[in-house]
Amino acid sequence: MTMRIDSKPGSLSEDDLSRRKFLAGASAGIAGSVVASAAMADTLADVPPREVGADLSGHSERSKFVRIERIPEAGPGQRHVDPGDAINSKTPLDKLIGVITPSDLHYERSHAGVPEIDPAKHRLLLHGMTQRQLVLTVDELKAMPSISRMAFIECTGNGWENWKKADENLTVQNTHGLVSTNEWTGVPLRYLLDIIGGDAEARWMLAEGGDAAGVARSIPLTDEIMDEAFVAYGQNGEPLRPAHGFPIRLIMPGLEGNLNIKWLRRLKFGDQPWMTRWETARYTQLLANGKARQFQLRMETNSVITSPSGMMVIRPGYNRITGLAWSGHGKIAKVEISTDGAQTWKQARLSDAVLPKAQTRFQTDWIWDGGATKISSRSTDDKGNVQPDRASFIALMGTNALFHYNAQQTWSIDAAGRVRNALA
Amino acid sequence: MTMRIDSKPGSLSEDDLSRRKFLAGASAGIAGSVVASAAMADTLADVPPREVGADLSGHSERSKFVRIERIPEAGPGQRHVDPGDAINSKTPLDKLIGVITPSDLHYERSHAGVPEIDPAKHRLLLHGMTQRQLVLTVDELKAMPSISRMAFIECTGNGWENWKKADENLTVQNTHGLVSTNEWTGVPLRYLLDIIGGDAEARWMLAEGGDAAGVARSIPLTDEIMDEAFVAYGQNGEPLRPAHGFPIRLIMPGLEGNLNIKWLRRLKFGDQPWMTRWETARYTQLLANGKARQFQLRMETNSVITSPSGMMVIRPGYNRITGLAWSGHGKIAKVEISTDGAQTWKQARLSDAVLPKAQTRFQTDWIWDGGATKISSRSTDDKGNVQPDRASFIALMGTNALFHYNAQQTWSIDAAGRVRNALA
Repeated sequence: MTMRIDSKPGSLSEDDLSRRKFLAGASAGIAGSVVASAAMADTLADVPPREVGADLSGHSERSKFVRIERIPEAGPGQRHVDPGDAINSKTPLDKLIGVITPSDLHYERSHAGVPEIDPAKHRLLLHGMTQRQLVLTVDELKAMPSISRMAFIECTGNGWENWKKADENLTVQNTHGLVSTNEWTGVPLRYLLDIIGGDAEARWMLAEGGDAAGVARSIPLTDEIMDEAFVAYGQNGEPLRPAHGFPIRLIMPGLEGNLNIKWLRRLKFGDQPWMTRWETARYTQLLANGKARQFQLRMETNSVITSPSGMMVIRPGYNRITGLAWSGHGKIAKVEISTDGAQTWKQARLSDAVLPKAQTRFQTDWIWDGGATKISSRSTDDKGNVQPDRASFIALMGTNALFHYNAQQTWSIDAAGRVRNALA
Repeated sequence: MTMRIDSKPGSLSEDDLSRRKFLAGASAGIAGSVVASAAMADTLADVPPREVGADLSGHSERSKFVRIERIPEAGPGQRHVDPGDAINSKTPLDKLIGVITPSDLHYERSHAGVPEIDPAKHRLLLHGMTQRQLVLTVDELKAMPSISRMAFIECTGNGWENWKKADENLTVQNTHGLVSTNEWTGVPLRYLLDIIGGDAEARWMLAEGGDAAGVARSIPLTDEIMDEAFVAYGQNGEPLRPAHGFPIRLIMPGLEGNLNIKWLRRLKFGDQPWMTRWETARYTQLLANGKARQFQLRMETNSVITSPSGMMVIRPGYNRITGLAWSGHGKIAKVEISTDGAQTWKQARLSDAVLPKAQTRFQTDWIWDGGATKISSRSTDDKGNVQPDRASFIALMGTNALFHYNAQQTWSIDAAGRVRNALA
């Protein structure tokens, strides 16, 4: 039996949504057309396409109805610039679903554009305080034992804009779009060191990129770093993309983004740091007391609500609050949400699987009463590190520094439901 | 100090590779240029691009040096057909790295092409033996509590070609390319049933797709299925792609691919199956005794070596053996590899994290002595299911059936290193 159903959405009743125990007895904002007739309806006459669709293909592209892209920027606050001036391109966290960042939307940060390297000509030099030096092709690396793991990469400048000033018109892509999570595949650093014969005294490694800027960083070879670092050639199941280091990049789970050297061409081993200009000038952290901190490498525990977030509009009633949490120290242990301006906190649900040094999606249910308020998230990792509020963070770090901002992100909501960036 | 290094790859010695305990004392095939000079070399003069690279962008595309695509087919053995005749398009497992299948390379199987649905107009009807009927928009679904998880989807016909006959020129894309693993995000079926008020007697669900074929399947609502099924709108962090069900599809972790209804428009609840033509004709399993088995829904434990695999050529010495294992029953517990024609087996390493009803990458190290041999993999899941050899599988299932082929895959290797598809 077939009948036509009016498919114009209506509203679910309070009772409908309060069936869920976690939505205890509050008014609900999810709309939906409740079909009053008890008659069996077997079709939605106006929904299905009845023509044969497009041919199957070699690649399945995005729907023409989906617009989702990064924003190239020339620097903090310098958006919509001439493409040649852009130095980074931020991940649209507000439009992403789940945990994985699509490869073409992983954030970019580069110092001399994106080189298009021929993998057949690329080489990796391993040398320094080792028993021998070695030059490897990409195919040789791909033939070696490999590991695959999820890991976030975060630009050390992520969040910078909210450290300095309040711009209420920022989206979460603007405030936090310099962090992404991909599955990476490559050869463990320990394996390479075993082959060339590492020297026990060589506790530093210089990693150099093959772009015109030749970004080079000194990395201390602690046990934790030795256990996790690898030379990657795979990203989300396929070869790296040029913007993300094709054909090879270093992956340093939990460490600041610029150590994950793209277009990797050289690893040198030694007993002290090389003090490149990238560490003496660019990535040095100027503290409140005027001293400079070098080699602050590990990213802190962090989180941000991605929905509702900056420039969105919400309605009274049911609103799902969701976002991402991550820590360079390990796994996320818990995320707490405040919907009353950081007065009270409620623990959020975490999506399986919670993986170390990867982003974790959190979610909680909220019945908004329509009054102006502020919402924020606070993460805690499995080493006990707690994401600080902005006042505590600035009391500790001052406002001279540029990097490793991990203060709680606050979104204000006015009585009209407009969500805006706020400093606390 | 700077010098030029001859970057033409040479060969690592046996000693180089035997540093790894798992490569005990055998000859090694990884080539590499060992730099004999003890002088410090600080650059590879011919490697780095010294020009500023391409501008940063809204999307980072693949390298022009990477060619990786699916193969549309009209049916088993019918490759390179007119695109309009294609009914599936297989994932290039031999070219993939890691576990995740890139969204544009997830396999396709459709019965009436790929519809391009406007999400603003699409609706989902929930009805049948329920307290009320409901029509939901896509935006309403996206506002509800959601889950994200990795899951494989496998066409029930995957592997079919090796059930029937030996074609030694098949690649692993041909033999096993109808399985892929993505991260999926959506609304749990239990949540939707709570809203509409499910009837305890309604232990069957009809799921219908919105393409012209209107694929519809009856699904028994066991506890395991109820715990895991969800209506997905997200795939690898972004909205579904049209070929994979945009704007919404059903995800049924571990069950045959055709139950993961794409372009989902209707879920109906009842106390018995609807016996659609998809279950009475298309997806019925004809057994050896002439009887037909219906509703064999869960995919069995399976695995395949993706490298070395069909049509590759290997060299004597070190060869990494790697591949993918999966089971519709749960997690992969172990994968064993034979390199001597299934006489002896050695346990492979599994990549973290091993997730239930998702693919797991395995890997082992092998020193090939240059003699003709056969290699194969055998998976065991955490419910104790062991992947059968082909003779046992056919003794049980006969050769009339078309679906749920999960016999061990054998690749033969001749003395010239040519890898070919073999039946055992």
